[in-house]
Amino acid sequence: MLQRMLSEIRIAGFGGQGVILAASVIGKAAAIFEGGFATMTQSFGPEARGGSSSAQVILSSDPILYPYVSRPDILVVMSQEAYTRFAPQLKPGGILITEQDLVRIDRVPENMRVYGVPATRLAEELGRKVVLNIVMVGFFGAVTNLLDRESLREAVEESVPPAMAKLNLDAFDKGFAYGTELVTRLENGDVESVALEAV
Amino acid sequence: MLQRMLSEIRIAGFGGQGVILAASVIGKAAAIFEGGFATMTQSFGPEARGGSSSAQVILSSDPILYPYVSRPDILVVMSQEAYTRFAPQLKPGGILITEQDLVRIDRVPENMRVYGVPATRLAEELGRKVVLNIVMVGFFGAVTNLLDRESLREAVEESVPPAMAKLNLDAFDKGFAYGTELVTRLENGDVESVALEAV
Repeated sequence: MLQRMLSEIRIAGFGGQGVILAASVIGKAAAIFEGGFATMTQSFGPEARGGSSSAQVILSSDPILYPYVSRPDILVVMSQEAYTRFAPQLKPGGILITEQDLVRIDRVPENMRVYGVPATRLAEELGRKVVLNIVMVGFFGAVTNLLDRESLREAVEESVPPAMAKLNLDAFDKGFAYGTELVTRLENGDVESVALEAV
Repeated sequence: MLQRMLSEIRIAGFGGQGVILAASVIGKAAAIFEGGFATMTQSFGPEARGGSSSAQVILSSDPILYPYVSRPDILVVMSQEAYTRFAPQLKPGGILITEQDLVRIDRVPENMRVYGVPATRLAEELGRKVVLNIVMVGFFGAVTNLLDRESLREAVEESVPPAMAKLNLDAFDKGFAYGTELVTRLENGDVESVALEAV
């Protein structure tokens, strides 16, 4: 079950990174496997023409009447442009998740938690850069602890063609493991923020 | 350019019919090729578990601040369940588009225009039932005249893998031609409503 009554999430990057699929996996995980409700909203407009891509997901334990995300609780960014555009909208106390090799963060506001993952590199280690979006989903799962790990895995499996299931589950597990390790290191005080390490 | 300032569209059917892809083709056509704005919202919830699928598209000549569709202007239904559930929400004066072999309409309210197309059969004539969603999009284009035909075709081409482009464009053209012929017959008074013919 969802830990919070309502969570608003924005995922953004550039076209071809699989932003929409990542968003729909998260929506499915909440709704189908955890008995919650979710909506995913995708915008087509001038910004889509510029090669950028973004989607909003709202997770809720009740039916959603108003799916417009104004100030996300969680922002997942896979491009510098997405970071620049959406970071100011993040709610105070929110969580920022970055593809750390693609997003440079100048300074982290005190009231924001930042988690970075080299998702593209981890995907390349699996031989297919294209699964970086699912690495991000795994990492999102580990650092937010918002949804059940197994629900997310099942949603991944349901969202890709059967022939691609193993690759995508491996990508999910890789991102999840990276996130778990990072959270442990942060708790132990080994690092302040891995997102900043990369800058 | 969009003929109306704002159009709300709901597309609904059962899982596997390609409802989401159809919705995103319409959104893309409006936004990318016609300089308008569009959002596509997909819900995951108890209804998604029942094997049904629906998406909302809002087309606008201005940025969209509130993407929630309450009463669509246009409803496209590909299953009886979708018809039963969503038809009561259609705005007075709205347009109902049905997969006429899958949806039985008992009576058409006077203030509603109904257009039916045997999309599954037309898709089967192309040898691939799976493109029934794009047949529906073509038919939608012809009977609503809301978006430019070429914009829709380009959005179809952009939305499918290159190897599937020809099949999907053929499906679009088949649905469009069926719609054009139907509109002509309706204007000539040859039929009252093809949707009712099938009942």
